[in-house]
Amino acid sequence: MNTFEFKNPTKIIFGKNTIEKLENEIPKDAKVLLLYGGGSIKKNGIYDQVKKALSEFEVLEFGGIPANPEYAILMKALKLIKSENITYLLAVGGGSVIDGTKFLSSAALFDGDTPWDILSKKIRTEKGMPFGTVLTLPATGSEMNSGAVITNAETKEKLGMGGPGLFPEFSILDPQVIQSIPQRQLANGITDAFSHVLEQYMTYPAGALLQDRFAESIMQTLIEVAPKVIEDPTNYEAASNFMWSCTMALNGLIQKGVPTDWAVHAMGHELTALFGIDHARTLAVIAPSHYHFNFEAKKEKLAQYAERIWNITEGSTEDKAQAAIEKTVAFFHELGIDTKLSDYTKDYEGTAEEISKRFTDRGWTGLGEHQDLSPDKVEKIVKMAY
Amino acid sequence: MNTFEFKNPTKIIFGKNTIEKLENEIPKDAKVLLLYGGGSIKKNGIYDQVKKALSEFEVLEFGGIPANPEYAILMKALKLIKSENITYLLAVGGGSVIDGTKFLSSAALFDGDTPWDILSKKIRTEKGMPFGTVLTLPATGSEMNSGAVITNAETKEKLGMGGPGLFPEFSILDPQVIQSIPQRQLANGITDAFSHVLEQYMTYPAGALLQDRFAESIMQTLIEVAPKVIEDPTNYEAASNFMWSCTMALNGLIQKGVPTDWAVHAMGHELTALFGIDHARTLAVIAPSHYHFNFEAKKEKLAQYAERIWNITEGSTEDKAQAAIEKTVAFFHELGIDTKLSDYTKDYEGTAEEISKRFTDRGWTGLGEHQDLSPDKVEKIVKMAY
Repeated sequence: MNTFEFKNPTKIIFGKNTIEKLENEIPKDAKVLLLYGGGSIKKNGIYDQVKKALSEFEVLEFGGIPANPEYAILMKALKLIKSENITYLLAVGGGSVIDGTKFLSSAALFDGDTPWDILSKKIRTEKGMPFGTVLTLPATGSEMNSGAVITNAETKEKLGMGGPGLFPEFSILDPQVIQSIPQRQLANGITDAFSHVLEQYMTYPAGALLQDRFAESIMQTLIEVAPKVIEDPTNYEAASNFMWSCTMALNGLIQKGVPTDWAVHAMGHELTALFGIDHARTLAVIAPSHYHFNFEAKKEKLAQYAERIWNITEGSTEDKAQAAIEKTVAFFHELGIDTKLSDYTKDYEGTAEEISKRFTDRGWTGLGEHQDLSPDKVEKIVKMAY
Repeated sequence: MNTFEFKNPTKIIFGKNTIEKLENEIPKDAKVLLLYGGGSIKKNGIYDQVKKALSEFEVLEFGGIPANPEYAILMKALKLIKSENITYLLAVGGGSVIDGTKFLSSAALFDGDTPWDILSKKIRTEKGMPFGTVLTLPATGSEMNSGAVITNAETKEKLGMGGPGLFPEFSILDPQVIQSIPQRQLANGITDAFSHVLEQYMTYPAGALLQDRFAESIMQTLIEVAPKVIEDPTNYEAASNFMWSCTMALNGLIQKGVPTDWAVHAMGHELTALFGIDHARTLAVIAPSHYHFNFEAKKEKLAQYAERIWNITEGSTEDKAQAAIEKTVAFFHELGIDTKLSDYTKDYEGTAEEISKRFTDRGWTGLGEHQDLSPDKVEKIVKMAY
């Protein structure tokens, strides 16, 4: 087990009808900016629940934060925060709205030249404007971690940021919210959370027996509840386990003391930036090729995953490892998630070269748990994913 | 899954040679009281490491906190805290020293009649004096939770306390510390952590699929590493998994959203108060009788535990459940832990009646996950454990 530090101060309020507890979590004298996305919260009743819970507060609103939160739009919200002397941010949405709110939390207190520096210069946020979240779409885990990913449409970039100042003070998780989520997005959420676990697990054995089992527990639970969630989002048992699994998949716990990969995300982000493909789907496109390409380095963990998750007990380490990749692809397909780039765009020629070039330009010379995934290898992996 | 709230702000610093990081965690202007137990830290080098890390700080010391931290002794430390205007507490020890420090953290800011009220009147600690810990004995999980148990020798009572103000600000976990722990205490630590998981798991199915698997992960890991830890405490992989399992067993995570029992602890505490039996051993004495007595209510979870932890797949639910209790007893025996009260004292007659009477006197009429374990049932369970 590797040396690690772990601290996660976010307060989770989980369960049926918990949105009404909002009023106890925000300081009474706060001037709140309520942030949300495309407006689905106005149709599904969540907006009304939030407004009711905040009836005693001074609240301004900023809607329209898109999937893959867009820098230019967030800059408009930042202007509002400053001109209106906002003191507290409340994200009501999924990972995109929460990530956008994290950027705003950081940018509101940032005193450098331009807030884009936070992303381009990888400036760690030690302190941000306080914020909380009401999660409406289980997937990214952003509701209980201190990271965010922001998209810049102008430069077609998608970059990460983070720091101990970016944990939500609280997050409200009512599993009933998934009842109004379209099937497509539920499938994305399951795929996203499952992929998050894989990034923190599918490396090499590091003697972190408990962390491995926790990671496996999340994957087993997602596999168990996935068909139930898709079939009937009003199934509360399935919904609650789905929601809590998504949060636990990326709240920092399972990555502590183990090597992590994250190369699938690095490549996937580029597919979203280039083609607008849903984040989760880009992970499902890249992961199988990535595991095939890095088979030797990952085969021991692939075989452990084969045995413990997919009950594949016959054959050699290599046999099990291969079968596990196939099982993973089949799992994504059952969710209705395509796993080849050509399933999403006819315009894929040159993509591998472009992504490889971008990584070179950024100086990203060694991705993955061994930091040996150079841009030329990235090119090969992305090509395998066509 | 039940509705829950979860927040755990303790910063964990885990790994080899992490004690030296102490100096970064305590405010530079703090006046520190270093609290420890019987002095073993002076023999195993931990005291020297701590003193070195604190060389720039103003530090006073209070040693001699006994196993089952004793109220009268802690009151002497409290006097010192007040007379010397201490501002920060540092516990260097196992669960007893940490629990004692939690009591002091609360008592230092308590303005009621007598600090014993915190325990006897169950006063929740919203804010305590800040403190950190250096864990020297993995077992209780006290290093990452907000609870404590304090013993009063005069009244032969052992009572709990807690509250959000009692999380350590940080805890340093260096698995190398277990190298100097006697085998007896290592066995106690494993038994204690395993029992903590059982209290939060061995109830009835509540649709908390992920929490169940997390609990099972900890038990599987403890079973896997237990013989290695006992045989060779310098085995770092075993030590680190043992240590992290103990912390995760009682940092609040696995109990969220599920029913919990804790009747084994309630009965066990009395055996410690009456006979001075090691805490962990009292749990191993009570648990098997408790599960036999409450067999009908617990058989489904016992059978799940049988299947997933002990690979017992044959027979009826009842068969598996019975076999699981036997496996648990055998596991304790392999650790050198006796599981009958008469193994510890010849003077056990009347114990069941005495404990039952104490519970009645305290108004504890319904223990356990169904709150139906009345004092007369407690009497029967304790008798079964003779």
